[in-house]
Amino acid sequence: MKTEGGSPLNFNPEPHAGSDRKRLRGGAPIQIGLLGCGTVGGGVLRLLAENAGYLAERAGVPLVVKRVVVRDLEKERVSALDRSLLTTRPEEVVDDPAIDLVVEVMGGETPARALIERAIDQGKGVVTANKLLLAAHGPALLARAAARQVDLAFEGAVGGGIPIIRTLRDALASDWVASVTAILNGTCNYILTRMRDTGASFDAALREAQQLGYAEADPTLDVDGHDAAHKLIVLAMLAFGAQVDSESVHTSGIRNIEEADHRYADRFGYTIKHLAIGRDLGGSIELRVHPTLIPKQSVLANVSGVLNAVLLEGRAVGPALVYGRGAGDLPTAVSVVSDILDVARSIASGVAGMQGRGMSIKPRPVRPLGEIVSRYYLRFVVEDRPGVMGRLAGALGDAGVSIEQIVQQEPAREGQGAAPAGGRTAREPAADVVLITHDAQEGLVRNALDAIAREHFLREPVRLFRIEAT
Amino acid sequence: MKTEGGSPLNFNPEPHAGSDRKRLRGGAPIQIGLLGCGTVGGGVLRLLAENAGYLAERAGVPLVVKRVVVRDLEKERVSALDRSLLTTRPEEVVDDPAIDLVVEVMGGETPARALIERAIDQGKGVVTANKLLLAAHGPALLARAAARQVDLAFEGAVGGGIPIIRTLRDALASDWVASVTAILNGTCNYILTRMRDTGASFDAALREAQQLGYAEADPTLDVDGHDAAHKLIVLAMLAFGAQVDSESVHTSGIRNIEEADHRYADRFGYTIKHLAIGRDLGGSIELRVHPTLIPKQSVLANVSGVLNAVLLEGRAVGPALVYGRGAGDLPTAVSVVSDILDVARSIASGVAGMQGRGMSIKPRPVRPLGEIVSRYYLRFVVEDRPGVMGRLAGALGDAGVSIEQIVQQEPAREGQGAAPAGGRTAREPAADVVLITHDAQEGLVRNALDAIAREHFLREPVRLFRIEAT
Repeated sequence: MKTEGGSPLNFNPEPHAGSDRKRLRGGAPIQIGLLGCGTVGGGVLRLLAENAGYLAERAGVPLVVKRVVVRDLEKERVSALDRSLLTTRPEEVVDDPAIDLVVEVMGGETPARALIERAIDQGKGVVTANKLLLAAHGPALLARAAARQVDLAFEGAVGGGIPIIRTLRDALASDWVASVTAILNGTCNYILTRMRDTGASFDAALREAQQLGYAEADPTLDVDGHDAAHKLIVLAMLAFGAQVDSESVHTSGIRNIEEADHRYADRFGYTIKHLAIGRDLGGSIELRVHPTLIPKQSVLANVSGVLNAVLLEGRAVGPALVYGRGAGDLPTAVSVVSDILDVARSIASGVAGMQGRGMSIKPRPVRPLGEIVSRYYLRFVVEDRPGVMGRLAGALGDAGVSIEQIVQQEPAREGQGAAPAGGRTAREPAADVVLITHDAQEGLVRNALDAIAREHFLREPVRLFRIEAT
Repeated sequence: MKTEGGSPLNFNPEPHAGSDRKRLRGGAPIQIGLLGCGTVGGGVLRLLAENAGYLAERAGVPLVVKRVVVRDLEKERVSALDRSLLTTRPEEVVDDPAIDLVVEVMGGETPARALIERAIDQGKGVVTANKLLLAAHGPALLARAAARQVDLAFEGAVGGGIPIIRTLRDALASDWVASVTAILNGTCNYILTRMRDTGASFDAALREAQQLGYAEADPTLDVDGHDAAHKLIVLAMLAFGAQVDSESVHTSGIRNIEEADHRYADRFGYTIKHLAIGRDLGGSIELRVHPTLIPKQSVLANVSGVLNAVLLEGRAVGPALVYGRGAGDLPTAVSVVSDILDVARSIASGVAGMQGRGMSIKPRPVRPLGEIVSRYYLRFVVEDRPGVMGRLAGALGDAGVSIEQIVQQEPAREGQGAAPAGGRTAREPAADVVLITHDAQEGLVRNALDAIAREHFLREPVRLFRIEAT
């Protein structure tokens, strides 16, 4: 619904069934306001211009961009932008009664949140690709949109061009999603792929990603896992109807993975991927983001470079995977425009607010990390003397953790020769002990590691990575 | 739109914008009639019953199954079926003015086609999973539905639980799909996976598939590629807006793949998959279904067993893949129910017919097979004497086809010892010459093979498989 105010739109005043607030519009165009015009916004403008005729046929009315809010009026923009539409004042979008649909592609929480709330309150449909905002305030924004009978769509927020949101929302409407296992950060996936394929160090692979534009100058949000955690929270909202705080999602990044870990993983038949994992356990849910060893022959193991993938397990549908470019102006813009079409079509037909109807999102407890059950890869850098392997195995056994395989090897680390990491000096002999456990509760593994930390043969902090069968 | 006739439905008589034919319904339930109640139909009934509350919230009104048409009233059915709804008379569904939505899960062309046409003509929404019917008459049925302003939805027709139809129709609405490369038949994929992984023969793998219920007693439709061709035609309708006859789709199956081909493919770094391939070339399209060598590290190579996958290449979105169970009662039923929800929601909101609006489907020429350009795997079983390899290479060179690699090897075929295939006797020495070409036009390759066929050293028909980079 729109508050038409003094707008010149030729709308049909007859009330819609079940609501006196909806208005039918005749054939008047849908007027769009864009908040932000960076890479994604530019892509949206380009696709709207290139596909104008087709989109108008699909929506039933033309889609017209009426105003574009930017910070800098002078900056160069895509050629699809009519510069006379530019303004620095967001209220010219969210408060203009002639604007039906607001597209937020500025990112960040402030001022995006207040602007989206204001647009919803004015009865406008909203399309956003803002995962950070949705992770923090998604359920509240969806409730606000539902109360005002407008649509809030966000296909572009997770997985760029991958149609994961509409798959969860529409395609699996009659299924129960048991789990989500996903590669959600292209920067991490690129770095891990290069480390695996070329033997590069984390630092070298990160530099390469930065040179190619796949990583930011400050890569923290990506390589420390926060970006993936935001997206996992958005997926959990749709897959499990769960409202969760980002603090309750265990999040670790890829900085402490060494070349040696890739070599050992490969030797055991695994690939290291940075995964976002969600499970519906009935009473609670499991949500975690961390580096994970998965079998080399699994489909996710072959999702390489900057690609993203989401593997779902539905009770009825079984395994389902969607995969594609997780970032970039055009892939994300395709998703944003698919949302614009959906929302515009509903507004034009007088049935806005239908999309999210019936979705229930409520707080759900997240299982503490100590209670999860997994297999583990553990790498200990130890003094190279007899008996150490036995004491490691003994400590795990004492804690109730059984071991599937264990190997000991002199570490051979390229490029670290004279100045090894972790305080070890070149004179003392050291060895890697790497082991794979059977399924164990994480709390028990932590108990064993606490006991091992009290021994004096450890040269570096232990590397712990979980193993998933996928 | 529905012709309400003498129906007891409490509908709102106010006209909808732009149409005097649509009716708003108040909160009256959507009445569903099912044509067929086999495995998929049973799954649909089960999911509708288990998710009744949620689906009613999403649709805005309850979804009620009013009648179920079967051939045999006595046969055992799923417990979710109220047997009092059964009838053997399809007109009790398609002619009942109280029924809003017809779900066709009987399969085959007759009587499904006539019943769907009749349901459309009566203004009912239709959901079908009938790929054979859609391949033959999809464009005509969609045009009929558009003319009558009703929805015709068919997510279940391709790829079981894989949401490929709505991905093409909605998610990629602003993109241009350059190509579709897909594993669309679970039976073929299961057989090829077993042949590759266990060294089984085609016959042994087929028997195993039949024992597991993955292949029919008469497997022709699956293993000869026709089922995949039907699905490719449905995908081409959405991806390329193309109306094509099944005769113009080159279709070959997997019967002539031998164990040796899997071994050579593996040695060259490939896996053999049965692929359906579509490309938009601008002036024409390319559509073909055949066994194909793809690199072992490609994502499609790791789609194993009965799973299906569709890899799209969009101009803006880049590569996108969806993957899941391609058949089975529940995966397909999940797709059918997602369509029921969409169509029911549109009927309940008085906006039926919106889904297919603006889609344009017209006859497009299919490039003749002789004009396609590909790399080729060719295996010749030849007399084992000097000079043969040179004459093979020479014939290809003379035709303008350049060779990337060539190997010659004594064939070693397990389980065929005393009675080798293809008329060869155990006494005469024979060898396999296997070669991989560079990119070549298929017509030139055929010319070379014609020349080679005139030589007298060939012991068996040549095996030709195309190679795709995917």
